[in-house]
Amino acid sequence: EQMDYIRDPAEIYRQSFETIRREADLGQFPPVLQPLVIRLIHACGMVELLDEIAFSEGAFEAGAAALEKGAPILVDVEMVRHGVIRRLLPAENDVICLLNDERVRPKAEEIGNTRSAAQVDLWDAHLAGAIVAIGNAPTALFRLLERIDAGAPKPAIILGFPVGFVGAAESKAELIANSRGIPYIAVRGRKGGSAMASAAINALAGGLGTNV
Amino acid sequence: EQMDYIRDPAEIYRQSFETIRREADLGQFPPVLQPLVIRLIHACGMVELLDEIAFSEGAFEAGAAALEKGAPILVDVEMVRHGVIRRLLPAENDVICLLNDERVRPKAEEIGNTRSAAQVDLWDAHLAGAIVAIGNAPTALFRLLERIDAGAPKPAIILGFPVGFVGAAESKAELIANSRGIPYIAVRGRKGGSAMASAAINALAGGLGTNV
Repeated sequence: EQMDYIRDPAEIYRQSFETIRREADLGQFPPVLQPLVIRLIHACGMVELLDEIAFSEGAFEAGAAALEKGAPILVDVEMVRHGVIRRLLPAENDVICLLNDERVRPKAEEIGNTRSAAQVDLWDAHLAGAIVAIGNAPTALFRLLERIDAGAPKPAIILGFPVGFVGAAESKAELIANSRGIPYIAVRGRKGGSAMASAAINALAGGLGTNV
Repeated sequence: EQMDYIRDPAEIYRQSFETIRREADLGQFPPVLQPLVIRLIHACGMVELLDEIAFSEGAFEAGAAALEKGAPILVDVEMVRHGVIRRLLPAENDVICLLNDERVRPKAEEIGNTRSAAQVDLWDAHLAGAIVAIGNAPTALFRLLERIDAGAPKPAIILGFPVGFVGAAESKAELIANSRGIPYIAVRGRKGGSAMASAAINALAGGLGTNV
């Protein structure tokens, strides 16, 4: 005896996106950004996330163009890397997480910061024109902005989704208040996380294309 | 010039957990379960998650005891696996994700279900007394309950955190209504995700111990 539930993955995606379109007022976003908004809501199951999404004009286009040109994707935690749907990437783009690199722990001690932040100091060779997606650590986003203020290369886009109770809201408020001329998409406040960061990458790469 | 934010990882954890204790009414949960509740809230940045947490009596103790005895941890997606803090595990427990196993795609076609669900059919050898943590796919939770109804071995605990708009609420409602005698901890409704599933595992393994 089987239970009654939907088993067809394409149909699950279809009904999910349809439900979000029905419940969410997407008209407040540019059409090009709407698939990304749908994916963010899909990732967390919360239509109310809508009110906390912030972005700079042209951010989606900048991020999508960078991916098309083969830009690498820099992420702060392995969870974000594993949420990327590889076959959507237009140029087999590298997805790079250096959190567990052996240079990170001594760097963290040197700069008096978290390992998440210290890894940002190892990004310089990849940063120019890259996609940066932060799905966990506020300190990584703060550190990125510090590095850019100190002259580090600018990425093509910052996807800002640090989550939690200490620094998450503050780091994203800083990004939104002054993104240093860098296009960004972020969620205000405490909410965020690796699933949202991956969802944003997947949307830049392939809109509402799925892994089915 | 540096920005003003907290850089000490131990202090970040301390203030995070302190904020949650201040804002969340934890008294409605047994003391042994409170660290897990704190970790779930920490993972998503939402104190209001409190009202959606469901559990069976003794579930925490059952899960923690299974880990102590060396039980494997079965997860539905790689993101959950990568959210586990390995050094908290009491017995170097295996963390197993079979979603990308080569047997999964043909199995999915055979049973007419998602790959997430099909992988559950490959769990049998590991299931007895295991920790099962589902952080993404409702179909994986539905399939697990179907398999158990069909005589598959019972895990020590089910951590139920499928997320989204199709089947997430329904699969968790089924678990909560009839967990087949298996201890469980879950979040009702659409919310969930791999970060919550990892957080629950980490709490069973090491309470509020951190990765610092």
